Amino acid sequence: MLNESVVALGKKRSTIRELFEFGNQRAAVVGRENILDFSLGNPNVPAPEAVKQAILETLDTEDPAVTHGYTSAQGADFVRETIAQDLNRRFGTQYGGRNLYMTVGAAAALSICFKALTASPDDEFLVLAPYFPEYLVFIGEGAGAKPVIVPARNEDFQIDFDALDQRINEHTKAVVVNSPNNPSGAVYSEDTVRRLAELLTQRSQQYGHPIYLISDEPYRELVYDADTVVPFLPKYYDNTLVCYSYSKSLSLPGERIGYVLVPDSVQDFADMYAAVCGAGRVLGYVNAPSLFQRVAAKCTGLTSDLSVYKKNRDLLYEALTSYGYQCVKPRGAFYIFPQTLGIDDYKFCEMAKKYDLLVVPGTDFGAPGYMRISYCVKTETVERALPIFEKLAKEVLG
Amino acid sequence: MLNESVVALGKKRSTIRELFEFGNQRAAVVGRENILDFSLGNPNVPAPEAVKQAILETLDTEDPAVTHGYTSAQGADFVRETIAQDLNRRFGTQYGGRNLYMTVGAAAALSICFKALTASPDDEFLVLAPYFPEYLVFIGEGAGAKPVIVPARNEDFQIDFDALDQRINEHTKAVVVNSPNNPSGAVYSEDTVRRLAELLTQRSQQYGHPIYLISDEPYRELVYDADTVVPFLPKYYDNTLVCYSYSKSLSLPGERIGYVLVPDSVQDFADMYAAVCGAGRVLGYVNAPSLFQRVAAKCTGLTSDLSVYKKNRDLLYEALTSYGYQCVKPRGAFYIFPQTLGIDDYKFCEMAKKYDLLVVPGTDFGAPGYMRISYCVKTETVERALPIFEKLAKEVLG
Repeated sequence: MLNESVVALGKKRSTIRELFEFGNQRAAVVGRENILDFSLGNPNVPAPEAVKQAILETLDTEDPAVTHGYTSAQGADFVRETIAQDLNRRFGTQYGGRNLYMTVGAAAALSICFKALTASPDDEFLVLAPYFPEYLVFIGEGAGAKPVIVPARNEDFQIDFDALDQRINEHTKAVVVNSPNNPSGAVYSEDTVRRLAELLTQRSQQYGHPIYLISDEPYRELVYDADTVVPFLPKYYDNTLVCYSYSKSLSLPGERIGYVLVPDSVQDFADMYAAVCGAGRVLGYVNAPSLFQRVAAKCTGLTSDLSVYKKNRDLLYEALTSYGYQCVKPRGAFYIFPQTLGIDDYKFCEMAKKYDLLVVPGTDFGAPGYMRISYCVKTETVERALPIFEKLAKEVLG
Repeated sequence: MLNESVVALGKKRSTIRELFEFGNQRAAVVGRENILDFSLGNPNVPAPEAVKQAILETLDTEDPAVTHGYTSAQGADFVRETIAQDLNRRFGTQYGGRNLYMTVGAAAALSICFKALTASPDDEFLVLAPYFPEYLVFIGEGAGAKPVIVPARNEDFQIDFDALDQRINEHTKAVVVNSPNNPSGAVYSEDTVRRLAELLTQRSQQYGHPIYLISDEPYRELVYDADTVVPFLPKYYDNTLVCYSYSKSLSLPGERIGYVLVPDSVQDFADMYAAVCGAGRVLGYVNAPSLFQRVAAKCTGLTSDLSVYKKNRDLLYEALTSYGYQCVKPRGAFYIFPQTLGIDDYKFCEMAKKYDLLVVPGTDFGAPGYMRISYCVKTETVERALPIFEKLAKEVLG
């Protein structure tokens, strides 16, 4: 009598959320400080002081009936205009408020794009492994379309173009990309992006309709090496929709604030923007949280102190490879994605749980034999975990 | 190529939102103070000072990585527990955090319930006129089920039970009620609630499955007369889901914070709660905004100063009836719903727009020949509008 698939999704939380809850329960028993929790992308670095100042300034200077009141469904005009100007400054674009639709975080932004683009249950969205597992839920149960998984190119987690091309057909509605990537930490090179744009342009022409690129980029600002540049996808491919969130850059994941960027270059711009608005309405979003719309505008261009993530990445990469873990060096986001020493990844993660060390099996991201380590934690937590990773390597490798 | 129905919903905003935008545009021309805007349920009364204090206290005492971090999908434990205790204090119930699922406002709560209950596209949700028009969008486009409208009992806006009973069949999944009511201001009497519970119990038995009651009650605290009591529906009918929002009681509509209450008495409680969690996940909600979860807990049991609404209601009701408008006296919410003097309601509302007086046609709420006046405005705005209502009455009635 109930929607059985959502009952099942409600009972079987994502493995990540399951580990998060397990961690909470164990913390109550052994103390939070004894849980080596690398399961969730919940930034440990606090929001910058500017976030607090933005809140205080708003509360002190604005009429609360305005601050906490409804905004236009697409977001307050000045908020969208401010964010557009920041994008223009950084990327040499010419956006205005007309191109932005404020959302309740990136999950909402993605859900809205999938809903906006789904015209038939036969529509397919291509998802590149390794991927954020909720994509499959939003596409399938959420929008009523079909997620199609493209296998990973494991040597560097760039795109396996043959595998991608094989899966493009007349039902392909969009390709979802996420660079810097959760869970691999890979950042697509400019060469990868150019090839992707070329392929999608060709196949759009061949099938007589646009194949959209949905760029999920909450980690846009999280890169750690001077030579790592994150190409801005709308500059390479016209039919790109960008889904952004301040969850990671400003350490505000619980506040649920982000946006969809619909560039003017998108085919039938007015219809596409309307579809985004309509999908937001249909899914019950009303408007993105109003106080944090203001915070996003006031803090635009800022980030939390990201230096700890670079330090954690370097520590983990050096140590894990020295213990014998096979690993692609992550270039961005705050995840590292090593292989589980040749054994089953669920088994490995269960072994780790015995030491209250929480890491997520790669199978959940479409990559069996790997594990995701979220290093958005205190460096001390990394340092305490390293001997356990070493011990696990010895247990497995003998 | 796009989802045409959501494109259409994005282009044709709700009439309410359309009037809101029209008001914004006119305000830019003639000044905000000259717009007599009764279109939107955006409380004019500011949030109580306790909201600001709750924010400041949280920012001053809590680790920002926690304050702004992810919470459990169903909401932070202490927040749900605190709200449950407040309900227990007020209604003599025995809820715990297990019964609550925090949401991104009431629209999310409703969307989640519709999605959770929809097992087939044949499923029907009965909506009692006059109704909040977005119900139809959330049920139809959102959940993929069928909204079925039950005509109003215009003499008092209680329930027309014959009309309701005629529309119950084996596909009926739930009845949606909203008391205090938007747009009529009616509050269901205890007699109405008892008869409703009896009817649904009988029909549930007849068809061999529960017919749920979805109680949308953002206006629960907004009643104005000593003899008006809002019956708490879970005490009358076991299979009740309550959708609540702090939008109106704490004047926080833009912040999007509310909850679904799943009482233990609901059939297959564990499955129903899981369905709510699963539906929230599927729709991309992740968690309700974290700072305002804390605000809701800290301010539980408080409301804004609601006295201005009573004053506005009394002013409007006395004046409008004296001008010749037919009107049921509203008992709650902040809406009054007079007839449009025997002429077409769209025509009447267009006549009013010429004076920058914004009211919403009743047709949008399933009640042609009426208009909704949202009186969550300054009393001065009411006072300035009265002569225009009088002038319109003279124009129409001659």
